[in-house]
Amino acid sequence: MVKTPKKRSSKAGKPAGSLIHIGEKKVDKIKIKLIDYNSDKYIEHDFENIEQCFEFKDDKTVSWINIDGIHETEILSKLGDCFGFHPLVLEDILNTEQRPKIEDFTDYIYIVLKMIDYDKKIEELSFEQISIIFGKNYLISFQEKPLEIYGSIRKTIKNDESKIRKNGSDYLAYLLMDSIIDNYFGVLENIGEGIENIENRLVTSPSSKTLKEIYNIKRDMLLLRKSVWPVREMISKLERGEILLIESNTRIYIRDIYDHIIQIIDTVETYRDMLSNMIDIYLSSMSNRLNEVMKILTIISTIFIPITFIASIYGMNFIYMPEFTSKWSYPVVWVIILTIIIAMVIYFKRKKWF
Amino acid sequence: MVKTPKKRSSKAGKPAGSLIHIGEKKVDKIKIKLIDYNSDKYIEHDFENIEQCFEFKDDKTVSWINIDGIHETEILSKLGDCFGFHPLVLEDILNTEQRPKIEDFTDYIYIVLKMIDYDKKIEELSFEQISIIFGKNYLISFQEKPLEIYGSIRKTIKNDESKIRKNGSDYLAYLLMDSIIDNYFGVLENIGEGIENIENRLVTSPSSKTLKEIYNIKRDMLLLRKSVWPVREMISKLERGEILLIESNTRIYIRDIYDHIIQIIDTVETYRDMLSNMIDIYLSSMSNRLNEVMKILTIISTIFIPITFIASIYGMNFIYMPEFTSKWSYPVVWVIILTIIIAMVIYFKRKKWF
Amino acid sequence: MVKTPKKRSSKAGKPAGSLIHIGEKKVDKIKIKLIDYNSDKYIEHDFENIEQCFEFKDDKTVSWINIDGIHETEILSKLGDCFGFHPLVLEDILNTEQRPKIEDFTDYIYIVLKMIDYDKKIEELSFEQISIIFGKNYLISFQEKPLEIYGSIRKTIKNDESKIRKNGSDYLAYLLMDSIIDNYFGVLENIGEGIENIENRLVTSPSSKTLKEIYNIKRDMLLLRKSVWPVREMISKLERGEILLIESNTRIYIRDIYDHIIQIIDTVETYRDMLSNMIDIYLSSMSNRLNEVMKILTIISTIFIPITFIASIYGMNFIYMPEFTSKWSYPVVWVIILTIIIAMVIYFKRKKWF
Amino acid sequence: MVKTPKKRSSKAGKPAGSLIHIGEKKVDKIKIKLIDYNSDKYIEHDFENIEQCFEFKDDKTVSWINIDGIHETEILSKLGDCFGFHPLVLEDILNTEQRPKIEDFTDYIYIVLKMIDYDKKIEELSFEQISIIFGKNYLISFQEKPLEIYGSIRKTIKNDESKIRKNGSDYLAYLLMDSIIDNYFGVLENIGEGIENIENRLVTSPSSKTLKEIYNIKRDMLLLRKSVWPVREMISKLERGEILLIESNTRIYIRDIYDHIIQIIDTVETYRDMLSNMIDIYLSSMSNRLNEVMKILTIISTIFIPITFIASIYGMNFIYMPEFTSKWSYPVVWVIILTIIIAMVIYFKRKKWF
Amino acid sequence: MVKTPKKRSSKAGKPAGSLIHIGEKKVDKIKIKLIDYNSDKYIEHDFENIEQCFEFKDDKTVSWINIDGIHETEILSKLGDCFGFHPLVLEDILNTEQRPKIEDFTDYIYIVLKMIDYDKKIEELSFEQISIIFGKNYLISFQEKPLEIYGSIRKTIKNDESKIRKNGSDYLAYLLMDSIIDNYFGVLENIGEGIENIENRLVTSPSSKTLKEIYNIKRDMLLLRKSVWPVREMISKLERGEILLIESNTRIYIRDIYDHIIQIIDTVETYRDMLSNMIDIYLSSMSNRLNEVMKILTIISTIFIPITFIASIYGMNFIYMPEFTSKWSYPVVWVIILTIIIAMVIYFKRKKWF
Repeated sequence: MVKTPKKRSSKAGKPAGSLIHIGEKKVDKIKIKLIDYNSDKYIEHDFENIEQCFEFKDDKTVSWINIDGIHETEILSKLGDCFGFHPLVLEDILNTEQRPKIEDFTDYIYIVLKMIDYDKKIEELSFEQISIIFGKNYLISFQEKPLEIYGSIRKTIKNDESKIRKNGSDYLAYLLMDSIIDNYFGVLENIGEGIENIENRLVTSPSSKTLKEIYNIKRDMLLLRKSVWPVREMISKLERGEILLIESNTRIYIRDIYDHIIQIIDTVETYRDMLSNMIDIYLSSMSNRLNEVMKILTIISTIFIPITFIASIYGMNFIYMPEFTSKWSYPVVWVIILTIIIAMVIYFKRKKWF
Repeated sequence: MVKTPKKRSSKAGKPAGSLIHIGEKKVDKIKIKLIDYNSDKYIEHDFENIEQCFEFKDDKTVSWINIDGIHETEILSKLGDCFGFHPLVLEDILNTEQRPKIEDFTDYIYIVLKMIDYDKKIEELSFEQISIIFGKNYLISFQEKPLEIYGSIRKTIKNDESKIRKNGSDYLAYLLMDSIIDNYFGVLENIGEGIENIENRLVTSPSSKTLKEIYNIKRDMLLLRKSVWPVREMISKLERGEILLIESNTRIYIRDIYDHIIQIIDTVETYRDMLSNMIDIYLSSMSNRLNEVMKILTIISTIFIPITFIASIYGMNFIYMPEFTSKWSYPVVWVIILTIIIAMVIYFKRKKWF
Repeated sequence: MVKTPKKRSSKAGKPAGSLIHIGEKKVDKIKIKLIDYNSDKYIEHDFENIEQCFEFKDDKTVSWINIDGIHETEILSKLGDCFGFHPLVLEDILNTEQRPKIEDFTDYIYIVLKMIDYDKKIEELSFEQISIIFGKNYLISFQEKPLEIYGSIRKTIKNDESKIRKNGSDYLAYLLMDSIIDNYFGVLENIGEGIENIENRLVTSPSSKTLKEIYNIKRDMLLLRKSVWPVREMISKLERGEILLIESNTRIYIRDIYDHIIQIIDTVETYRDMLSNMIDIYLSSMSNRLNEVMKILTIISTIFIPITFIASIYGMNFIYMPEFTSKWSYPVVWVIILTIIIAMVIYFKRKKWF
Repeated sequence: MVKTPKKRSSKAGKPAGSLIHIGEKKVDKIKIKLIDYNSDKYIEHDFENIEQCFEFKDDKTVSWINIDGIHETEILSKLGDCFGFHPLVLEDILNTEQRPKIEDFTDYIYIVLKMIDYDKKIEELSFEQISIIFGKNYLISFQEKPLEIYGSIRKTIKNDESKIRKNGSDYLAYLLMDSIIDNYFGVLENIGEGIENIENRLVTSPSSKTLKEIYNIKRDMLLLRKSVWPVREMISKLERGEILLIESNTRIYIRDIYDHIIQIIDTVETYRDMLSNMIDIYLSSMSNRLNEVMKILTIISTIFIPITFIASIYGMNFIYMPEFTSKWSYPVVWVIILTIIIAMVIYFKRKKWF
Repeated sequence: MVKTPKKRSSKAGKPAGSLIHIGEKKVDKIKIKLIDYNSDKYIEHDFENIEQCFEFKDDKTVSWINIDGIHETEILSKLGDCFGFHPLVLEDILNTEQRPKIEDFTDYIYIVLKMIDYDKKIEELSFEQISIIFGKNYLISFQEKPLEIYGSIRKTIKNDESKIRKNGSDYLAYLLMDSIIDNYFGVLENIGEGIENIENRLVTSPSSKTLKEIYNIKRDMLLLRKSVWPVREMISKLERGEILLIESNTRIYIRDIYDHIIQIIDTVETYRDMLSNMIDIYLSSMSNRLNEVMKILTIISTIFIPITFIASIYGMNFIYMPEFTSKWSYPVVWVIILTIIIAMVIYFKRKKWF
């Protein structure tokens, strides 16, 4: 299915800055979870109202506010007022059609990423938009629906010895980004298996269904690429050290993400090339088959059309045909016919047609 | 239809600086509308003569002069004299074949954009050229015919509380550009629907008409691309902060437009890739069909040609043919014929031809 | 026809700096025309000897020396001695195989451009090389044969009120370049008409002749591109303000040329894409036709081969064939034949073959 | 076979910094070899425990610790503690899916390279990951299994007169990289022979097997390219002199490696182009054959179908057919038939069909 | 034939710096020629031993040592010792698989170029490696076998009035490079003629041989490109003025070479595009032919199969067939047959099949 940025147009003409949710509603009720930690302390809360988080804003500990579900614009506008976010940031969080990007507002940094899932059965990708805002000692993450990968991060934070407890919000931001991007490897694995699958079938039993599957994966790669390419640029911005909120010892970890994303892009490009090759192989096997079919037709026709002609000749009813009365005519005709057949067979054998 | 910059050549050889309208005349009578506002005041006028606007030039309020229809060169030359525009700017406003661009004359900025409409029925794009000139406290916009989207902007300005009333002419310029570019999303949606449509038909009933439609959209994308790519470069110039007339808090809004235009370009490129895939699918389905057709022909020929030969043999009229007088000849011939048929059918079944 | 830089090789091995004319001789007699002007004065002379121009070299007025025909190396060497041009410049003027380029020798600037003509009838481009050298108060232009477009420039200069009379030699250089490049629009128009023409025929009656025409235009675009792309780089060098001989108020006009050349390149690239599309359409219409042809053959064969077989069966001459003596045999055979025909027709109708 | 970065995903979600071996285990027992040398001294040890190496860390001589097999994470973590390597470096050494890269940690430099082997029989490439860390007076190299090429380097070091003895660890690093990259030439040679082989067969006896081999090599080139391209960037970083651990007289040798890698990339690209050409040749030879086949079928059909028709005519059993009783009918029919055959043969001869 | 850097691998593993000749031995005996000149003096010597040249090293005149044949490593090592060349330079001179490059060692500059020859008969390119080293007042040139083009340079030097006598070794280096690169024009001319040739045949009588020739030239272009592209980068390095040994008035001549090499690259790229077009034309003419063949087959079959069926009907031997006894049957059948033929002919005429 072609994915057009559909709901977008409903906004056209409205003044920028008005908060409108663009995208599907993926959870019923918005969940707010706060984790507050430093090297000594770890607190975890589930809140009903976003206002309950605000008291944690100014303490020295790192406060991670996680919000699952983004369709209630009110929560966002309250957050925006409290933390002083730019209206355009709030607007972008609500619009799930964003490209991955990073924006530096000096006091805080706004990051958009895509969580990618691959449904093996229907061979389709699905994308969730993740927004991360982090400042000196807080980080707020928004997603369309709860993410499993956050569970293991929470476990890590609980552990008093873990590195994250000794670091600031920038390290937490790194961890979130790292786990999201690491997840791409799994998606690529699944797609890779699909490619391998098709490749085997391409050799044993190519069919037009195979071709359609190849094109499906090709399109998946197109969408994947669109989500992955901008990440590279974005991470490289983080790594270059232009953004002051990222501390220098975190930056070396960012470089690690950068290596991963390059590796992912490499794999995506290699898959694309492989798919192109597979299409070529399919098409040339099709034309091969056409050749085969035509050869069979040609062999049969070329053998039987001439001898049928000979038979037709002696099917004529002329009264004065000397061959009719000869005793040898019939066997001679058979000899001629067999000679033609043998000659033809030898001819096609020589041409290596069978 | 191929669109060549037709009228252009009629100018060749003439000295640069002579004002000539290049393009279609899309309205009969030129309409001039002036809106004068600041945070306290809002005035709206419809004028007959351009001179009536000139008195608003030097007041402190923002004056938006909107001119629908550009074929009267006299109006332009008067405007140029009054505001001191460079002759080449006036020339460019009149020439509707311009590429989107931005030119910085320190005192004022000249912007060219394209308004794009998509006629779903004939699947064709149409382009209107929008010229925007803005200085310290005025903005002049030119278009070939009245634009609907300006209506909602006017409404926004009327609202005493709206942000625009607190900002200068650069924010107004941003709003105009934003609404023009937001409109591209709608065009892409319509084209996207067209692509989806064709894609469905491609699976169910591909025909040479489908292919022609694909090529039509492909060409639309070509034209769209030509109008959209330069916008990116232009907006990035605005965003980089080299242009002094753009105030720094407006620049963050420009960055938002930049994101939109990148998203639009992304979509255009994705559509192009999809269309290429669709052409490939079409062509391979064509060669598939040829294979099918050839298989049917080959099966029929290969079965019937040999047995017809056998029948012809016994259609010969030789007197001395021992088979003729035997009672068993006829049933034996049928047995042979049926054996051949069955053998052939098994052979083709094994080859998975049907 | 393939255009190789033929005469070039005759120079290989000779020392650089020796003046040799490379190219066709397009006029018999070299014509020298001098126009000397400033805001007050306008003088026009036709000279026989190049020496007559030299007295105008050091006056304050702008002297435009126009030379039609470049095959007489002597004239060039005299000019070179008098104005102090570098020997390589003289060599380049004589060699009509140059790419468009600009060279800055501080005292004077050397510009190479191509005048392009399109012969509609034989659908072929022809190129003339234009060399322009200009210094503080002189401009010398060389072309292989007289150019029409210079006439209108001369008229403009004659006009006492024209801008050019108030400007220096750099503005004259601009005017020459502008009129040469404006001329490209006309060439593109003609080619565009050709493309439109072919496109219409492609829909109504594609033939292998159509394909050949497409390839002809494609090649024209190749040559055009080769001449136009370097112009962009060259003009951008002029515009960037690195060249001191170009005054700052002329530079804004150069920017105008830059816009034109970008527009021309855009059109060239769009045409190339269109031509590729057209080739694709042609090829797919060819394979469509093959399909059509094969379908007709298959329908006819599939219907008649089986029924011919039936007829052949009863053409056999066995004595003991019970069907022969039955009164109903003949009509029954017809019923079978008609049944087969109808079944086949229904089958093919269902397959939507006709 | 498609190679996806398989094991990678098993790490997703785990905190960065935890040491996990990603890849195949290629040796049973890890081997540690230490070579300690300067211009006067040469010592070679085989150690069981990595701790035995640590005493050589701080002496002034160059210590080359070579470790074959990387699956024991404990060895690495001890090394990391002793030499103070960043945890991410240890992680990268264990992960055999790295791209070639260089990382500068001021005190030490971390280099990843790929050793490439080509198995001629199965026409498949295999890749070993080589990690090299070197600091002021030590170099540690890790590989998945023992490398032959290190033998000759050891011999060179043993030689008291060799250049390497007079240089530091950066020269040793150069030598290792040089021998790894030189090895690529051998791989290219083998692949080149394979290409040559296929090319010959392509001319004499193209078959669908040939095509598959071409695609196999094409895929090999894809993988090779992926391993070779990043090396270029990496070496150029070393050569540019940004890395202080590389001394200036070593840098000229790095430039030599750079030349080699460019030459290798050139060859890879040339091979890719050649393979594309070969596929084109194959496909056009296929369509050529189809043409041949169709011609034979057409010639036979076109000759025999009409004459068979004539024979059928006189096979009809109407009582009132005047031709039957004429003595000349039979020979006349033969004349007609022969005339048709001869006419057809001439026609096809003229069309140059045989 | 695929050209792999064959001998190269035999060096793998050996320490860098050991002198080994890589390539074919093209002359038996190495020839050494010394030319010593300044504005007053011209001396020419043929030497047996390289040592004889060494006395000219330190005089103020320019000494050009030309060495034909590079397989004797001893000569090189002596030269290297005397002039103090870096071992890697000596190694590179011996390895004829180098890419064109320039290396600046401050005291001297090392240049690698390729002399290209085109054998028209076998349509194959051959490459000779030229190495040029020049310092303050000497230039040493190495080639695999004697070059004709050096003869005319020697003549120029002999001439007391020639520019070269007034300039230093950098101008001599320029002259050598210029004559080598000028030679490429000749090669391109020959290839261009070949292309023109094939193009004509492509129109009149395309055959699979034509296609093979196109691919041969295409491969030649591939190799040519590989040798020419790096030259561009190399010359641009010389021109940019970073290299101090090139004096500023020589640099303008280098710019001239740069123009030539750009022109050559342009031509190479244009040829490549033309060859692609030609392949497309060939393939579409092939599919055109297939269409033609199929049309003939279809016309013949579609006309004769139905009428043969009618004849077969009346070839049946049923006793009760009313048509047999009617006097009009036979002519009626003919009428039916002719009607079918005429109808078919009209049908195909309308479809414009012939």
